[in-house]
Amino acid sequence: MLKRILFPSLIIALPLTAQADEGQWQPHQLPLLKSELKRIGIQTPAEKLADLNRAPMTAIVSLGGCSASFVSPKGLIVTNHHCAYGDIQHNSTAQRNFIADGFLARSRTEELPASPNTRIYVTDRVDDVTKDVLNGLDAKLSGKARYEGIEKRIKALIATCEQDKAYRCSVPSFHRGMEYYRIRQMMIRDVRLVYAPSDKIGNFGGEIDNFEWPRHTGDFAFLRAYVGKDGRPADPSPENVPLASKDFLTVSAEGLKNGDPILLAGYPGRTNRYKLPSEIRFVRDLSYPRRVAEYEADLAAIAQATKNNQEASVRYASVAKSISNGLKKTKGLLEGFGRRDIATIKDEQQAEFRKWMERQPNAKTLQGVLAEMDQLIQADFVLTEQQFAWSVATKSDLLTSAIALHRLAVERQKPDAERESGYQDRDLPFIKARLSRLEQTFVSEVDQTRWNTALQRYRKLPGDTHPLGLDALLPDVGAIPGLYQNSTLHDTNKRLEWMSKDLASLTQSNDTLVQLAVKLHDINMSLQNRRKEIDGNLDRVIPEYMRAVIAWKKSQGKPVYPDANSTLRVTYGTVASYAPKDGLVKGPFTTVEGILEKYTGKTPFDTTKGVLDAIHSHRYSVYKDKSLGTVPVNFLSTADTTGGNSGSAVMNKRGELVGLNFDSTYESVTKDWYFDPLMTRAIHVDIRYMLWIMAEVDKAENLLKEMTIRYPSAKDKSAH
Amino acid sequence: MLKRILFPSLIIALPLTAQADEGQWQPHQLPLLKSELKRIGIQTPAEKLADLNRAPMTAIVSLGGCSASFVSPKGLIVTNHHCAYGDIQHNSTAQRNFIADGFLARSRTEELPASPNTRIYVTDRVDDVTKDVLNGLDAKLSGKARYEGIEKRIKALIATCEQDKAYRCSVPSFHRGMEYYRIRQMMIRDVRLVYAPSDKIGNFGGEIDNFEWPRHTGDFAFLRAYVGKDGRPADPSPENVPLASKDFLTVSAEGLKNGDPILLAGYPGRTNRYKLPSEIRFVRDLSYPRRVAEYEADLAAIAQATKNNQEASVRYASVAKSISNGLKKTKGLLEGFGRRDIATIKDEQQAEFRKWMERQPNAKTLQGVLAEMDQLIQADFVLTEQQFAWSVATKSDLLTSAIALHRLAVERQKPDAERESGYQDRDLPFIKARLSRLEQTFVSEVDQTRWNTALQRYRKLPGDTHPLGLDALLPDVGAIPGLYQNSTLHDTNKRLEWMSKDLASLTQSNDTLVQLAVKLHDINMSLQNRRKEIDGNLDRVIPEYMRAVIAWKKSQGKPVYPDANSTLRVTYGTVASYAPKDGLVKGPFTTVEGILEKYTGKTPFDTTKGVLDAIHSHRYSVYKDKSLGTVPVNFLSTADTTGGNSGSAVMNKRGELVGLNFDSTYESVTKDWYFDPLMTRAIHVDIRYMLWIMAEVDKAENLLKEMTIRYPSAKDKSAH
Repeated sequence: MLKRILFPSLIIALPLTAQADEGQWQPHQLPLLKSELKRIGIQTPAEKLADLNRAPMTAIVSLGGCSASFVSPKGLIVTNHHCAYGDIQHNSTAQRNFIADGFLARSRTEELPASPNTRIYVTDRVDDVTKDVLNGLDAKLSGKARYEGIEKRIKALIATCEQDKAYRCSVPSFHRGMEYYRIRQMMIRDVRLVYAPSDKIGNFGGEIDNFEWPRHTGDFAFLRAYVGKDGRPADPSPENVPLASKDFLTVSAEGLKNGDPILLAGYPGRTNRYKLPSEIRFVRDLSYPRRVAEYEADLAAIAQATKNNQEASVRYASVAKSISNGLKKTKGLLEGFGRRDIATIKDEQQAEFRKWMERQPNAKTLQGVLAEMDQLIQADFVLTEQQFAWSVATKSDLLTSAIALHRLAVERQKPDAERESGYQDRDLPFIKARLSRLEQTFVSEVDQTRWNTALQRYRKLPGDTHPLGLDALLPDVGAIPGLYQNSTLHDTNKRLEWMSKDLASLTQSNDTLVQLAVKLHDINMSLQNRRKEIDGNLDRVIPEYMRAVIAWKKSQGKPVYPDANSTLRVTYGTVASYAPKDGLVKGPFTTVEGILEKYTGKTPFDTTKGVLDAIHSHRYSVYKDKSLGTVPVNFLSTADTTGGNSGSAVMNKRGELVGLNFDSTYESVTKDWYFDPLMTRAIHVDIRYMLWIMAEVDKAENLLKEMTIRYPSAKDKSAH
Repeated sequence: MLKRILFPSLIIALPLTAQADEGQWQPHQLPLLKSELKRIGIQTPAEKLADLNRAPMTAIVSLGGCSASFVSPKGLIVTNHHCAYGDIQHNSTAQRNFIADGFLARSRTEELPASPNTRIYVTDRVDDVTKDVLNGLDAKLSGKARYEGIEKRIKALIATCEQDKAYRCSVPSFHRGMEYYRIRQMMIRDVRLVYAPSDKIGNFGGEIDNFEWPRHTGDFAFLRAYVGKDGRPADPSPENVPLASKDFLTVSAEGLKNGDPILLAGYPGRTNRYKLPSEIRFVRDLSYPRRVAEYEADLAAIAQATKNNQEASVRYASVAKSISNGLKKTKGLLEGFGRRDIATIKDEQQAEFRKWMERQPNAKTLQGVLAEMDQLIQADFVLTEQQFAWSVATKSDLLTSAIALHRLAVERQKPDAERESGYQDRDLPFIKARLSRLEQTFVSEVDQTRWNTALQRYRKLPGDTHPLGLDALLPDVGAIPGLYQNSTLHDTNKRLEWMSKDLASLTQSNDTLVQLAVKLHDINMSLQNRRKEIDGNLDRVIPEYMRAVIAWKKSQGKPVYPDANSTLRVTYGTVASYAPKDGLVKGPFTTVEGILEKYTGKTPFDTTKGVLDAIHSHRYSVYKDKSLGTVPVNFLSTADTTGGNSGSAVMNKRGELVGLNFDSTYESVTKDWYFDPLMTRAIHVDIRYMLWIMAEVDKAENLLKEMTIRYPSAKDKSAH
């Protein structure tokens, strides 16, 4: 379909089995892909994979931002080390440093509470509610009115679903408003830390190896879901019992070899695969460069403000890390766009689509749709940059807390069902958690410096990005210390007290930052209303466009998957190397001997004595790959993943667990916008490395016994 | 045989056909390797390959430092662009810059004279003269006496051979004195430049890509051998005619694919494969680090002395380049020794050898031999460092000219046959050429600075490396300008005049540098005599050791090749990738599209418009590789090569030309000491790239017609 310069040498460097495995499929779509799945060698029937009430899909869970899967009938789940990092950190002290030393509960009584924010979400029901959301909605209804009409129906659908308090429900849209599904997830609140290897294993290579290949990271850890004795989610309690997870994944200690098919299931966060070329050019030429500059300046401000202040440095370490991550990803995207002219590829796709479209009976209508879409997207760009400018102008953690508190008070004047999403009663625990957590990452002087420098940058942004009326309300540089001095928001208890106060208390308050939040309210509302107006219109137009795109693809015999939206998806592919450059092939496997190649004894290339001993003495056990002659560590596949897929189960043709997804290669960074089957590779930790670490290094016999492990033939579990 | 940590992942990353293709074989040894050659798929019978009077060996020639081969019956030879560089440069001016623009003679009359120093050597006879050299030599004869006894016989054998003035003869020793062969080479003195692509093709990637892979260098050029009308070598003359080279190589435009067998024939310079572990430790721990420091200091002195002096910079550019090359290679060797403990590998080999040796009937004798060898090698180390110190102390181009002239006068007092090798009548043209050439790379002030700074470094070298008596004779810093002022050696004519003067003229001369040379003579002779003493003893002992090593290998069914010594050798291997790191595979092919990946428009990543156009328009012609889908540029093989193999013919299983050797990968740099079949890869330019450049870019139709090219079936030459 697409015409572009293919580097032919790259094509041949790939195994013949490598396929264009684009697609993050909704489980119910899998029967459409039956022949594809069969062709690559998947033996599990598509119908079984589509069934959310049967294995393997029942075993695939979300941690809210990460994916995981059940691996025993007693609620044992496996995910990435970096996904369980907060839980390990939560239990670590200088005296018992589980980050450095690893942690293993040898019995259930030794298990430790996960971080209070950790939840396990088990999707158990997905209903197509498109009709409920859209039927009877006036076709002429536009903009904000349409947006709010949809929101109202969604809230009602959620409320009905959440009548059973065991569940958290959501109604995400697919194909940006073309379809709506209601997702019901059992939300488990009592989660415990079971096992995590040392970060010298789980984070071997650290930031240096992030996005890189060759890779040697043992990025795995085990948690356990606990429920009340009635089998329903419950607050953490010693009385709770492990969840009976009957449909756990069987583990295959046999692993995979080059060219083998894989299935990968998890909760990918967000992709932009159906964006128009103009949208790519907007982020590439304007939006992302502006964000890169902002990230860099903000990081510099934090560095400067925390210099020579150990405590402040520690408090802002995670903030800085998160900004750095955004910076690295955005820079990577810009570099990727530089390497590969994705906008032009999309131009060519669009041209083909429009050629097809012109031959359709409803060509005229569609042309109108496209014209309106173009206009709306232009308006979207303008608003996006104004919202960005707003975020720069309000880059104060205390001010944004004040804004959130004031908004909450405004919303709480309405009946719960009519409140803005995010400010309903069901959202209060999350608001509270956010307001509480702030104390761990806040130092007044640093916050002031960040805001101060951000305001200077805001003033230098192009005038047309400044939201109307905002400039006049923003404080002068000299006024900031006074604003902070006369606010009580830096005190966590005081911050939380505001949550229950009524609107009048806020509007009449002497708190200087609350006063500013009150003043900024109208501008904020105006921005948000414009957002609803544009989104409401896009929600009306884009589905018509997507319906045409889907018809076009259907005319080519190709099913279409929706962009990722944090819902359960399945992708399939093959174990495969790739050729980042002419004459160079990467992957598909790394081995434990590669750990020795990188080993320096210093973070991030340090590892444990146990690992070194086991490698040096060639104690490969049953985890040795026959053709590699040693234990594999990480491997590459063509699977279509994105952020949120961390910890996703990688399964073999029989649906057995053979690895965990944890990263992508550097060359894949633009995949959220365009999936290049030649270059896009996901990085997985090999099940054999996980089992080998558990058996030969960490002696996690209890967990090896708890899981159902299928060993290569002529071997059995007694090998342990 | 060797036990070491093998990275198993590396093993499997290689094609199954990759073999341990160590060995730079004398052609006459090939019948011993018959089954090996057959196994990898070579169809040319070993006996034919061993015959120096039949193709293909008759076609393999030397340029003295580079290798080349005949590719037409009219004396057309092909070699590397970098081997013909001097010839291209010799003909280039600012007005007609053949380096940048390339050069193509469309007819024989357009061919240009090669550089006056260019010679083509065609080996036509190799006689085993071991008996002539050694028979009747008193077994007890030792040290210098033995050395001189051998030298005398060698000189006589050469003199007999060179009675026919068409030939240059030599009697190199093999296995360091175990065998001697007399090599007779027709020396062609009229060589002409026929075709060289632009250095944007021939040197694409330049110094940056040197030793690197992926590589995209079109390192090839064509010369032609001319002889007198009688068919014998002649001085350059318009009357001369192309040499009738009946046994030229047929060219295969089909090329090779991964895993295909290759033969490679050429003139490898020097290897150290049979050195003892102590010798590796000596260079690794002492000798090479000292040389690296010396190279770096000398380069700094040149840089400082030529700063702000354009003319001096130009004159010393090639000197600096040559020192830099030595530095890069020596540093690379040290890095390689660091990456891989070759000394320990050799320890293990030695231990195995000694274990075998102890079971032999002559074990006691051999133990004595080894003990003596160890002693001699220790003495060799001491002398080597004193000779190094001497070279630092005399780092003045004018002084070394004076020393050479004085030595020549000393030697010329003897009958020609008794003179030191290098100072006989047959050597005079080379001495003259050296003394003349100096003027192109000499500036008095720079030479003084180099010597001055070198003397300071000499004084800091350990006392036991200072040759006895030398310190007292060396000038003080302040004396150097006077020494230069009162010498006429900086004048080329005057330098050459000294060549014909008798010894008395030199000893009585007022020339200050000649006076110093006279004074230094005894110390120089003492060093050289000690060298002869040690070498004479080693020549006696090492053959006994080598005979035992050969017997040991024979007991394992393995033939033994001698270290390289600039004589004609054949190596075989397969086209193969390699895995420099766990999870990473390099090679075996690059393609023209890779040129676009590297292209920046700036040296060394610039290329010609013709190349860009042909790639962009996919004008691959018959040179497209079916599985690559495009034109291959460079490829890797397991062939065993070293310096001197530049330009060597790479042949397919039928002995047809399929490429030219031109470099090795960075990971191969220690191969002169230890051949690692997993890591050592030679880099070749693919014949298809050469033909494609000639056909599609440079339109060298005349040469394509002149060569015998076998095109892939269903295609024929009329494709042009």
